Amino acid sequence: MDEIVSPVAVVDEDKCRRNIRHMAAKARKAGVDFRPHFKTHQSHAIGRWFREAGTEKIAVSSLSMAEYFAKDNWQDIMVAFPVNIREVKKINELSSYLRLGILISDADILEVLEEKLVNLVDFYLKIDVGSNRTGFDPDDKILLERVLKKATRNPHMRFKGFVAHAGHTYHISSLNDVQKIFIKGAETLTELKDYFRKDYPGIIASWGDTPTCSLMNEFPGIDEIRPGNFVFYDLMQYHLASCDWDHIAMVVATPVVARHQQRNEIVLYGGAVHLSKDFIEMDDKIVYGEVVRFVNKGWEPFPKPIYVNRLSQEHGIFYCPEEYREEFSPGTLVGVVPVHSCLAADLLRNYFEINEGVFLNT
Amino acid sequence: MDEIVSPVAVVDEDKCRRNIRHMAAKARKAGVDFRPHFKTHQSHAIGRWFREAGTEKIAVSSLSMAEYFAKDNWQDIMVAFPVNIREVKKINELSSYLRLGILISDADILEVLEEKLVNLVDFYLKIDVGSNRTGFDPDDKILLERVLKKATRNPHMRFKGFVAHAGHTYHISSLNDVQKIFIKGAETLTELKDYFRKDYPGIIASWGDTPTCSLMNEFPGIDEIRPGNFVFYDLMQYHLASCDWDHIAMVVATPVVARHQQRNEIVLYGGAVHLSKDFIEMDDKIVYGEVVRFVNKGWEPFPKPIYVNRLSQEHGIFYCPEEYREEFSPGTLVGVVPVHSCLAADLLRNYFEINEGVFLNT
Repeated sequence: MDEIVSPVAVVDEDKCRRNIRHMAAKARKAGVDFRPHFKTHQSHAIGRWFREAGTEKIAVSSLSMAEYFAKDNWQDIMVAFPVNIREVKKINELSSYLRLGILISDADILEVLEEKLVNLVDFYLKIDVGSNRTGFDPDDKILLERVLKKATRNPHMRFKGFVAHAGHTYHISSLNDVQKIFIKGAETLTELKDYFRKDYPGIIASWGDTPTCSLMNEFPGIDEIRPGNFVFYDLMQYHLASCDWDHIAMVVATPVVARHQQRNEIVLYGGAVHLSKDFIEMDDKIVYGEVVRFVNKGWEPFPKPIYVNRLSQEHGIFYCPEEYREEFSPGTLVGVVPVHSCLAADLLRNYFEINEGVFLNT
Repeated sequence: MDEIVSPVAVVDEDKCRRNIRHMAAKARKAGVDFRPHFKTHQSHAIGRWFREAGTEKIAVSSLSMAEYFAKDNWQDIMVAFPVNIREVKKINELSSYLRLGILISDADILEVLEEKLVNLVDFYLKIDVGSNRTGFDPDDKILLERVLKKATRNPHMRFKGFVAHAGHTYHISSLNDVQKIFIKGAETLTELKDYFRKDYPGIIASWGDTPTCSLMNEFPGIDEIRPGNFVFYDLMQYHLASCDWDHIAMVVATPVVARHQQRNEIVLYGGAVHLSKDFIEMDDKIVYGEVVRFVNKGWEPFPKPIYVNRLSQEHGIFYCPEEYREEFSPGTLVGVVPVHSCLAADLLRNYFEINEGVFLNT
C-alpha cells in the first residue's frame, strides 16, 4: 500500500463480489429480477464484477452516469431519477443505442416528452410509498389513469410499471419496522398492478433501497429489486443492521498528518472533500466515520472503537485512546469506514484493491 | 442559460472581481500581504481574475492543487495544510520549479524531511490559536525552539514564520467575538515573532479565515492574510454577517424535476453530490441552501425566503409557499445559494458565468 499517498477508496474485491453474489442469489431465489443501482460505485471495473455474476440490467441516477456505463457496453439502463426535461437531447442520444428506462413523477413533463422524444423509451411511474421524497400518490387513481393515458399516447413511450424507493428505511433500525414498510409498500404496488394490468399487461413493480433488500429474503408482490449501496455497505448500514461488519467492502485510506499529544487527537488528510459531511449520531456525538487499522490484505476495527468526530474541507480529526497512540505516527495510512459510501465514492472516484494491491482503472 | 441542462456552479464575474478587488485593497491599506486561498474555486479562469487584481502568491490545501495552479504559472504557493510525508516526492517535484511553502504541525516529520527533501522549501509553523484543529501550542516555547532548531538544520528548509487559521470564527456570529478572537490570536503570533526574531529575522505571521478578513479592517501584528471563501461567499458567511447578500457571487443552478402539489414541495435535480451535505440550522430547521430566482444576468432571493430542507444523493427538496408555486414548473432552472461554496465548487468543478452567459474553461 506504499503507492497510496493521498486519500483513496480502498475496496476488498472478494467482499464486493461476495456481496454481489449474495444479493444476486437472493433475487434469483425470491423470483425477482436484479437491477443493481450503480450510483454507489460509478466504476467500470466494479460494474464488471456484477456482469461476471450475471447482471445484465442496471439502474443509475443521472443520464451522464448512464452514458458512462453505456461506454462499457451496458445495454439496459434505468435512470432511477425523475426525468429532467432540460436533458431530452441526451435521452434521445442514449435511447438511440440502448434500452433506456426513465421515471415519470410529474405529469407536467409529458407534453415536452410528446413533442421531443424521437426513440422508444421504457417508462415507469414513480410511486411514493411513504418516504415523501418524490412520486405519485398511489391512492390518486384518477390522476394515475390520466397520466398513463397521456403518456402512452406517445408512440415513443412504453409503460413498464411502477417504481418505489423506500428512503424512510434509512431512518429506522429494526428489522420489524423495515418489514412493515416493505409489506405496506409492496401491497400498494401490487394493488396498482392489479388495477392497471387489464389495460397494461406485463407491468412490473420495482423496489429500491439497501436496507429492505438486505434484511428481507422474500419480496412478495415485487418483480425487481434495485439496491445499490450493498456492494460496499458503510457505517450507516452497519448501524441500521443491514450488514455485518465483515460485509463492509470499502474504506477510505487517509494518511495521518499530525498528532496532538496533549489532547490525544490525531489529524488525518481526509476531510469533507473525501468522506462527505454525511454523519450519524451515536451517544449524542456526531460521527463521520469509524477508524480502522490496515492489516494483511484487509482492515480491522479497534477493540475500543474510534470515530472521526470533526471534519473540515481536508482535515479529519479523531480522539485517540491513549493505548493506540503509538500506531498513529505521521505518514501512517489509516482506514476510515465512511458513514455513506455512495457519497465518499462519488468524491474520491478512484479505487485501490487491497488483495492485489493495485489501483482499479475507473 | 438554455445551455445549462444539469447542476453547475453559476458565478457572477463582476461580483467575484469586486470581492477580490475589495479584499486586495483592504490588505494593501492595512499594510499586509495578500495570499488568497484558492481551494475555494480551484479554477484557472477564476485564478486569473486574482492575477489581474495584482495577486502574485496563493495558498492551496493540497499538493495536487498546487500542481494544478503551477500549470497556470503560479510561482509562489503555500500548501496551507500539514505536510503529508507520504507525498514527499511531489514536494520535491514542485519545489524544483516553484517557490513552495509547507506547514509543519508535528515535530515527528522532521527526520523524514531531513532525509528526503532535495530542494529548498519555505516552511511555516502552524500555531493553534484556539480552533483546536491542528498546530503547535504557542505557549510551549521549549518545543517550538526544539522544532525550529531541528528544522533549520535541514539545508532545504527555510523558516518563514507562523501560520494560524481561526476556524472557530465559523461558529460565532458577532463582530465583537470575531474581533476578540483576532486580537487574542494576533497577540499570540506577535509574541512568538518577538521571541524568535533574534534567531530568525524577517519571520512573518500569516492569518487565514474569511470571517476575520471580511469583518476586520486592520490586522495589527499580522503580515499576511489568506482568506479564500470570500471570492464567492455563501449562505453560511451571510448568516455570520461576513458579507452582504449582494456579495454572494456563486449559486448552484438546478433544474426542477417534479412538483408535489399536495404538500407544496418542489424536487430539484441538485443533491448531496452537488451542494454537499453541509448545513446550517435556522429556527431549529436544517438548511442546505437558499433558493433564488434567476433574473436578467443575475439572481434574487424570494421575498418570503425559501430554503432547501432535504437532500439525498441527487435530489434537493424544498417547501414552496403557495404564491410562488407557478414559478417552479418542471424544467425551470432554479438557483441555490449553497451553505458552503467551497464544498459545492469542489463537487461541481464547472462554472457558468452569468453576465456573458458562457461556461468558463476550468
